[in-house]
Amino acid sequence: MSEARIWHGGDLGEARRLFPQAPEPWIDLSTGINPIAYPVPALPASLFARLPSPADHRNLEEAAAEAYGAKDAAMVVAAPGTQVLISLLPHLRPRSRVAVLGPTYAEHAHSWGKAGHDVAEVPSLDGLDRADVVVVVNPNNPDGRLLKREALLHLAGNLRLHGGWLVVDEAFADFDSGESLVPVLPSNAIVLRSFGKTYGLAGLRIGFALAPEPISTSLRSALGPWAVSGPAIEVGRKALRDQGWLDAARVARTDDACRLDALLRPVADAPLRGTILYRLLEGSRADELFQALGEQGIWVRRFQYNSGQLRFGLPCGEAEWQRLKTVLGRFS
Amino acid sequence: MSEARIWHGGDLGEARRLFPQAPEPWIDLSTGINPIAYPVPALPASLFARLPSPADHRNLEEAAAEAYGAKDAAMVVAAPGTQVLISLLPHLRPRSRVAVLGPTYAEHAHSWGKAGHDVAEVPSLDGLDRADVVVVVNPNNPDGRLLKREALLHLAGNLRLHGGWLVVDEAFADFDSGESLVPVLPSNAIVLRSFGKTYGLAGLRIGFALAPEPISTSLRSALGPWAVSGPAIEVGRKALRDQGWLDAARVARTDDACRLDALLRPVADAPLRGTILYRLLEGSRADELFQALGEQGIWVRRFQYNSGQLRFGLPCGEAEWQRLKTVLGRFS
Repeated sequence: MSEARIWHGGDLGEARRLFPQAPEPWIDLSTGINPIAYPVPALPASLFARLPSPADHRNLEEAAAEAYGAKDAAMVVAAPGTQVLISLLPHLRPRSRVAVLGPTYAEHAHSWGKAGHDVAEVPSLDGLDRADVVVVVNPNNPDGRLLKREALLHLAGNLRLHGGWLVVDEAFADFDSGESLVPVLPSNAIVLRSFGKTYGLAGLRIGFALAPEPISTSLRSALGPWAVSGPAIEVGRKALRDQGWLDAARVARTDDACRLDALLRPVADAPLRGTILYRLLEGSRADELFQALGEQGIWVRRFQYNSGQLRFGLPCGEAEWQRLKTVLGRFS
Repeated sequence: MSEARIWHGGDLGEARRLFPQAPEPWIDLSTGINPIAYPVPALPASLFARLPSPADHRNLEEAAAEAYGAKDAAMVVAAPGTQVLISLLPHLRPRSRVAVLGPTYAEHAHSWGKAGHDVAEVPSLDGLDRADVVVVVNPNNPDGRLLKREALLHLAGNLRLHGGWLVVDEAFADFDSGESLVPVLPSNAIVLRSFGKTYGLAGLRIGFALAPEPISTSLRSALGPWAVSGPAIEVGRKALRDQGWLDAARVARTDDACRLDALLRPVADAPLRGTILYRLLEGSRADELFQALGEQGIWVRRFQYNSGQLRFGLPCGEAEWQRLKTVLGRFS
């Protein structure tokens, strides 16, 4: 696959190649996926057998509109994961100057570049108004940097003057959506929302674009009907309407993130950052730590652009916490 | 959704709107989906929770390559259903003259048209060499017309002379793949293969393009990684390697198709056509029959371009056969 050169979390095949002697089972902390998944209900055979109906599909989009605070479900486009939306968006514009606020999730720059656009990674919002498309991940992955809604609205306003787009990837906004652009979506902004990370169901493949016309229609068109599976529609619409689960998960994962910070702090040269689903460690011993963790079967996320950073997802269950603690203890 | 104006099978919401007094449960004969599905195995929670790995994805594509007789798994692109491939293909070419051999599955002409190409539906292969893209559904839906592999190879050869593509939708070729273009795929041909119809698992969303470079890479790129769900990968690779199930299904569905023909023949003005998953009835009383079936809660496929045709999928279980027989008996 042509995607192989981008590093991603979640590929234990790569972990096993790098550390063939590591003990099994591997602990995968390389993603920002909630390790305590939303409980998948019993799925009737008909969900697998029948094509999802337009009404089912709409129902999922309505649940998403409500969960994300969208004014109108018509702006919600359901997809089999946000990745396909990230890959498709660049095909909806003529060749453009694209600025990606980075470093960030690598697929954005990669997708716009592959589609023939002129892509630059930029370190701040200053001067971005001249780009045709600005891509922001908010909160950012991996460092959790959170831009204010007002700053994004201002940027969108300036971009609109010359037909530019603002793409905001809110993949990690579910647990803290105070700065989400969804409730005030400008006519030239596209927000991406991921389902699998918060709900711990990345294998189901559900994601959403929230976009005004005509962008939403173009995205629907490029995906065609039935892009989301029957099981995904069923689980997704149930989970997105379960506010109680989300609130409880927020409390529990915040506790986990605090516990993780306490373990990582002795190795860190700077304050830990991130969201409650991942923590970014910066330290001069990051390389050495990556190696020690790998040898003990613990897979964390390193970065092609900065060997002094490691991203940690949340462990799941006391056995994983203890194995992590043992390795980190040697670095204190 | 902008797709609403195309009629499709499988939408019982539309059936209930047209026939609000019909008895429940509805019998849905409006699709060409095998009513006896491949048995879905128990799916471990990890398939829902984790992102599918590149190795899992490759494994599905290898199973498809073997099942379809492809020379090399690298030409197989797995997708969440063939529909998204049909929607994406038009985005991979500059504005082109597209000829769709029709009448046929409406999404082909619709997708090329929406993407800005000049689309014509043509009744035969004669003179098609001058088009930039020719789309053929083989065997055809709804009439089962089967073009010979040699004719398609000849057409592909002529198209190649001026950079043209041949797109062959083999959605219904699994049970009779003798004319499939896959084993001899020309460098300018794209074959689409559907999983959900043959295996009765349309809700899972799996489909494949078999395409040479650079088309396969462009399609992968537009889909991005992880477009196919974990459960779909697991079920798909198992089913595609189960030759015994496919052989048994071929026998059983052939019996069903013969039994259906016997019921339909008295109402038909012409020989019944189609594949073993659907039968096309032509008759002056088609309209009247559609009405009578609908009033009895039996939903069949009618066509915007020809009110003298109805397409019947296969009933499932003796109760369905008897309800169908009762209505058809009034037309004998």
